[in-house]
Amino acid sequence: MKDYIVKDPWKIIEDTFKQEYHKVTESLCSIGNGMIGHRGNFEEYYSGETLQGNYIAGIYYPDKTRVGWWKNGYPEYFAKVLNSANWIGIDVWFGDIRLDLNHAEILSYKRELDMQSGILSRQVHLAIHHIECKISTERFCSYVDKEIGWSKYSIESVNYSGPITLESFVDFNVRNQDANYDENFWDFHCQHIDVEWGHVFCKTKKTDFKVCAGFKSKVEIDDQISADKCCSSSERKVGHIYSIDINGGQLVTLTKCAAIISEFHHGDVRLTDLCREKLDQATQEGYPNAKEKHKKAWLDKWIQSDIKIEGDISAQQGIRFNIFHLNQTYTGTDSRLNIGPKGFTGEKYGGSTYWDTEAYCLPFYLSTATSSVAKNLLIYRYNHLQKAIENAAKLGFSDGAALYPMVTINGEECHNEWEITFEEIHRNGAIAYAIYDYVNHTGDMSYLHDYGLDVLVAICRFWKQRVNWSNHKEQYVILGVTGPNEYENNVNNNWYTNYIASWCLRYTMDCLSNLKGNAEDVYDELIGKLKISPDELEKWTHIIANMYYPYDENEQIYLQQEGFLDKEIIPVTEIPKAENPINQHWSWDRILRSCFIKQADVLQGFYFFEDDFTDEELSRHFDFYEPITVHESSLSPCVHSILACRLGNIDKAYEMYLRTARLDVDDYNNDTEDGLHITSMAGTWMTITKGFAGMRVKEGLVTFDPTCPENWSGYSFSIQHAGQLISITIKSELIILKNHDENAVRIKLKEDIFELNGLESKTIVLTR
Amino acid sequence: MKDYIVKDPWKIIEDTFKQEYHKVTESLCSIGNGMIGHRGNFEEYYSGETLQGNYIAGIYYPDKTRVGWWKNGYPEYFAKVLNSANWIGIDVWFGDIRLDLNHAEILSYKRELDMQSGILSRQVHLAIHHIECKISTERFCSYVDKEIGWSKYSIESVNYSGPITLESFVDFNVRNQDANYDENFWDFHCQHIDVEWGHVFCKTKKTDFKVCAGFKSKVEIDDQISADKCCSSSERKVGHIYSIDINGGQLVTLTKCAAIISEFHHGDVRLTDLCREKLDQATQEGYPNAKEKHKKAWLDKWIQSDIKIEGDISAQQGIRFNIFHLNQTYTGTDSRLNIGPKGFTGEKYGGSTYWDTEAYCLPFYLSTATSSVAKNLLIYRYNHLQKAIENAAKLGFSDGAALYPMVTINGEECHNEWEITFEEIHRNGAIAYAIYDYVNHTGDMSYLHDYGLDVLVAICRFWKQRVNWSNHKEQYVILGVTGPNEYENNVNNNWYTNYIASWCLRYTMDCLSNLKGNAEDVYDELIGKLKISPDELEKWTHIIANMYYPYDENEQIYLQQEGFLDKEIIPVTEIPKAENPINQHWSWDRILRSCFIKQADVLQGFYFFEDDFTDEELSRHFDFYEPITVHESSLSPCVHSILACRLGNIDKAYEMYLRTARLDVDDYNNDTEDGLHITSMAGTWMTITKGFAGMRVKEGLVTFDPTCPENWSGYSFSIQHAGQLISITIKSELIILKNHDENAVRIKLKEDIFELNGLESKTIVLTR
Repeated sequence: MKDYIVKDPWKIIEDTFKQEYHKVTESLCSIGNGMIGHRGNFEEYYSGETLQGNYIAGIYYPDKTRVGWWKNGYPEYFAKVLNSANWIGIDVWFGDIRLDLNHAEILSYKRELDMQSGILSRQVHLAIHHIECKISTERFCSYVDKEIGWSKYSIESVNYSGPITLESFVDFNVRNQDANYDENFWDFHCQHIDVEWGHVFCKTKKTDFKVCAGFKSKVEIDDQISADKCCSSSERKVGHIYSIDINGGQLVTLTKCAAIISEFHHGDVRLTDLCREKLDQATQEGYPNAKEKHKKAWLDKWIQSDIKIEGDISAQQGIRFNIFHLNQTYTGTDSRLNIGPKGFTGEKYGGSTYWDTEAYCLPFYLSTATSSVAKNLLIYRYNHLQKAIENAAKLGFSDGAALYPMVTINGEECHNEWEITFEEIHRNGAIAYAIYDYVNHTGDMSYLHDYGLDVLVAICRFWKQRVNWSNHKEQYVILGVTGPNEYENNVNNNWYTNYIASWCLRYTMDCLSNLKGNAEDVYDELIGKLKISPDELEKWTHIIANMYYPYDENEQIYLQQEGFLDKEIIPVTEIPKAENPINQHWSWDRILRSCFIKQADVLQGFYFFEDDFTDEELSRHFDFYEPITVHESSLSPCVHSILACRLGNIDKAYEMYLRTARLDVDDYNNDTEDGLHITSMAGTWMTITKGFAGMRVKEGLVTFDPTCPENWSGYSFSIQHAGQLISITIKSELIILKNHDENAVRIKLKEDIFELNGLESKTIVLTR
Repeated sequence: MKDYIVKDPWKIIEDTFKQEYHKVTESLCSIGNGMIGHRGNFEEYYSGETLQGNYIAGIYYPDKTRVGWWKNGYPEYFAKVLNSANWIGIDVWFGDIRLDLNHAEILSYKRELDMQSGILSRQVHLAIHHIECKISTERFCSYVDKEIGWSKYSIESVNYSGPITLESFVDFNVRNQDANYDENFWDFHCQHIDVEWGHVFCKTKKTDFKVCAGFKSKVEIDDQISADKCCSSSERKVGHIYSIDINGGQLVTLTKCAAIISEFHHGDVRLTDLCREKLDQATQEGYPNAKEKHKKAWLDKWIQSDIKIEGDISAQQGIRFNIFHLNQTYTGTDSRLNIGPKGFTGEKYGGSTYWDTEAYCLPFYLSTATSSVAKNLLIYRYNHLQKAIENAAKLGFSDGAALYPMVTINGEECHNEWEITFEEIHRNGAIAYAIYDYVNHTGDMSYLHDYGLDVLVAICRFWKQRVNWSNHKEQYVILGVTGPNEYENNVNNNWYTNYIASWCLRYTMDCLSNLKGNAEDVYDELIGKLKISPDELEKWTHIIANMYYPYDENEQIYLQQEGFLDKEIIPVTEIPKAENPINQHWSWDRILRSCFIKQADVLQGFYFFEDDFTDEELSRHFDFYEPITVHESSLSPCVHSILACRLGNIDKAYEMYLRTARLDVDDYNNDTEDGLHITSMAGTWMTITKGFAGMRVKEGLVTFDPTCPENWSGYSFSIQHAGQLISITIKSELIILKNHDENAVRIKLKEDIFELNGLESKTIVLTR
């Protein structure tokens, strides 16, 4: 764990240059706008340890699979988000001395990410070979025009008089550090440079994604525009070179505008022309205007999604950091995009979609944005349905059964560990659950017959074939699976999997029967289109009624899987400190046969399907499973925290909250340098809203059952519900509900329903 | 399946050049002597598909592990047998036309491996660019001086008059085709060439094995030695070049002697000098003498290990092929060597030791060679004990517990699939069983206190820690294992594993208690040395008495693992033909959750521990498991065949026998081109001796309970027992026992004991 970021409610500040944490800070200071993004790399040359990263949403490369031992059914490749053109680069030379913070004496230093406005800046006072100067930088990826990035780079000479050279460039000589076979993923197409502008145009190998990265730049010396500019061009790199004679006290400012134009977002047009047009438009508007618009867009975003915490600046910084990155990663305007595990902050794990999206991220976007954003996440999977059916077919399933991939970008499976790829099939359940979640939140029933039921029926067909009748048990069983707890592989009858499989069948049948009741013609059409026979529905019913759930009469708990109680049940507290985390200290077999749980598994089911169980049942299961859960997935603590809130165990809930709230800011797991844990950030958001605030949507009504952690004096947040913006402020003694909309709204608080008129707010004093 | 090898009792003959099967024939025609060996590559340049392979026993390279997803505990490398210097190479040019069978017109062709004498030869009549000639080659790896190889290469011109050039060389420009990262595994040390001799000296990277490959050659033209020789030298390659003017009808013969000298076998001496000395000695003796001695050595070997089958030439060829390769691969003179899965016939899987050695190969060497050969196989593991203890320590075990590697060359684990590496722990049982097998066969009790008990106790300590007490079952369980049937991974309570674990404890305690009874002082010393406490022995006893064995009361069978009967039990016959073998057609998860068994698992236990079960029990288990066994391991059918013999089901036994007897000769699995299935060859030998002939050793007595497959008119074989050579001939109506030794011997035939005087033979007529 690290503790070098200055505590601030709105900013991430590194106030001395920590070279040893540079890659961590690069990750923390990543900026993006859902379309383009990059790590917080320095503009100028840096010879120290760095992970260069510039990314474009949707642009990926199918990197050839690397395995030790091939198993039949493994995918040929792993789709990876690509490192793309570096457009922030500005090289600085004082005579023949190159500016390099790795070899400079740092006199003062501040790197600052302003999350409120989405602007990354840096102030450095440094000396290099007796040349003393001050650098001041500022840059952003426009939240308004999402293909445009701006950078402003100033150098003030303190004591130096002499030649200074600035090269502002776009460089497409980039690699992915985690490429399986050290391949270059880009083919060169063309490049151009003149005094007006420059661009490099490349396309990805195999996938043929065309990307044109262009720039314009200008330099001012003490506010006077300098015309001394010449052009540079080398392989995949073009630049403007400014050679200036500077005197002590003079200020040189380079302003750079970049446009990253990709065929993915524009189709088959002349990308080069478009790139030039975009640059012309942007530079005509100018840096100050662009910056103001950008800031305004971020402020608007914060109105919808901010969480304010009073009395705990560290918690405040943590939650805003999470919300900021969620809003940078995904904006929900393109249903081909999704939420990669590292967003625009790193390249590890590929930039692909996991079940995290449905299980953890969807609620955030459902509550903090218009419903079209969440809907696009669902449409993403709908568009992949055919590939999910093909994926299932590869594994021997037929008749339109769909198995969604464990990891994907384009709908095809990328993952290559049999115990995950082939066996972690509960992901299908999460995709169905997301449909339920969306419909429940939005009331958008039309989604079901337009899109949802196609997916649900295909998933049901998978479960129907994936269960088998056990003559021995005279029930249906699901053999050979990996549950959410990936510290168990290839188990039989994982309770969560069996439960969600059965739930999928149940929910789909409910949807069908509702549809039949409400719109028989639509129902008939759908039944015809999907070729659903009465026999099929009968079989589903039979499975629902006869599914086996491992249960121990003695403990009165559902077992994570069959035979779980043959393990030695030891609390996590008995693991020697030096052996934590166990996944870094124990061999895999030892982890597997231990009782220790990586992330919520049975409890994930209790979270999803909370209304199916009494508080007493929950309490019994929580008390059994929580002490043996090591939470070695960043996705785990939020679920435990939410459940602990329901049980009134706020201390436990807060303990769990702390485990993820500042996961990246404090580099808890020593891996933030690879990039941030984007999807788990949504879990932290849920811990506050669904946990502490007890927010639920039931029968179209937003309900709260709030509590306030002891060391917070209060907290508040806004949500979007049915197109209306509502906010809630929770303090230990009172609750303030506010309707930001013109129309009235009903909100349930614990057992009481409050009606708020347009723009009305209500304060409710809590009685103990 | 292919059927192009000419049926012959002693030879492998390819009588037309099958280019498409060239790599298969190269594998089949591999020759070796336990120290050096190579594939049946052509001497001259060949531009077609070929797998070049020259190997030296014990010389390996630690190839960096390649995995998709690293698991804690994986080994850093996979030890691979190395492709070493090519010494057979002879390049031939007619003017500027290079001899290349890939571009020649083949007028007649015969490649022949004489297994009786261990000589590989070839006769080719060919035309290339209107040049007609006859090539005749012969070569062998001396079975007498095991570092010497000989090659004789003749060209008879039919119609060609003109210059002919022969280059005889040693070439160390070699690679392993299955290198994980395409690395070159050899560093160059030095090389030398003069008209007398030449050598190339390289050493392996990382492991530093030094190898000097030298050669001498001479050329005769129509029996006249030619002196026209010049030297060639290029990077890692030296040669003699003979430029001759030849006339139609003339015969040119090149004789080449090579010496492959390795530090592994000689320690720190001047390998170059030694190489030269060896060459001088060998060439002084000359080709004809060396060949005669070599043939004699093979004939002697055959006296000990031949199996004759009458009335079935195909079966005869198959079994001799297997015996031949077993005797080529391992000769038992060096306890650092073992039986790699491909021997000297290919590089796949590394050249490492699996549990195959103990479970399948040991019986062959126990019965066909002096006991020192089998003993060396045991000493190999004894010498690796410390590394097995370290291996277990890496996985969290302590107090001297040993887990032998799944795959090894030097005692360290090489394998990197968690479900095998960490979980296929029954291999420890096979290593203990081999000690039992050896002591039972040889009566060599001293082995136990000198070596065996150290290994047994360390294995028991592993089992003691690997079991855990199930509060739920109130018995000991073994969770998370892979049994012999690798089509199940990470199962709980694999019956075979639980059984052999308990047996290890039982056998070790028996050995200790015998030792106490017979030599209390030795016992006390051992107990002191191994620090065995009464508590420890008590714990072992408790485990033996309270081990859990999954059993189904209804079927009255032991279950392969817990929950096995939750599967759909479908006979193999119902798998659609097009989906066989399932491991090439089904995804891994589908295989795992199916009932289908790759290789004997419960039945492996019934084979090892046959006296623990009644015929009726065996019959019940055989009838349950045999129909669901797909035998997709070449190690499987032999066990089923032996058990079927015990049950009197000779048809089934013969069906199973046929599945492996000609596995490689007929390229049954379409993978012989990668090399031969050496370890499964021993299984075929067992099928005849332990299966059809019902051979067992019990209480020091060799017993037979023979039967004869219907389409054989008879069969016979010899075995070594207690230093005496005994042979048995089995025909449908009579048995002939023969004592080849001067001393009397007792042999049990079914229920009767026969005493045979020195050199006596007895014919027993069978009554029906």
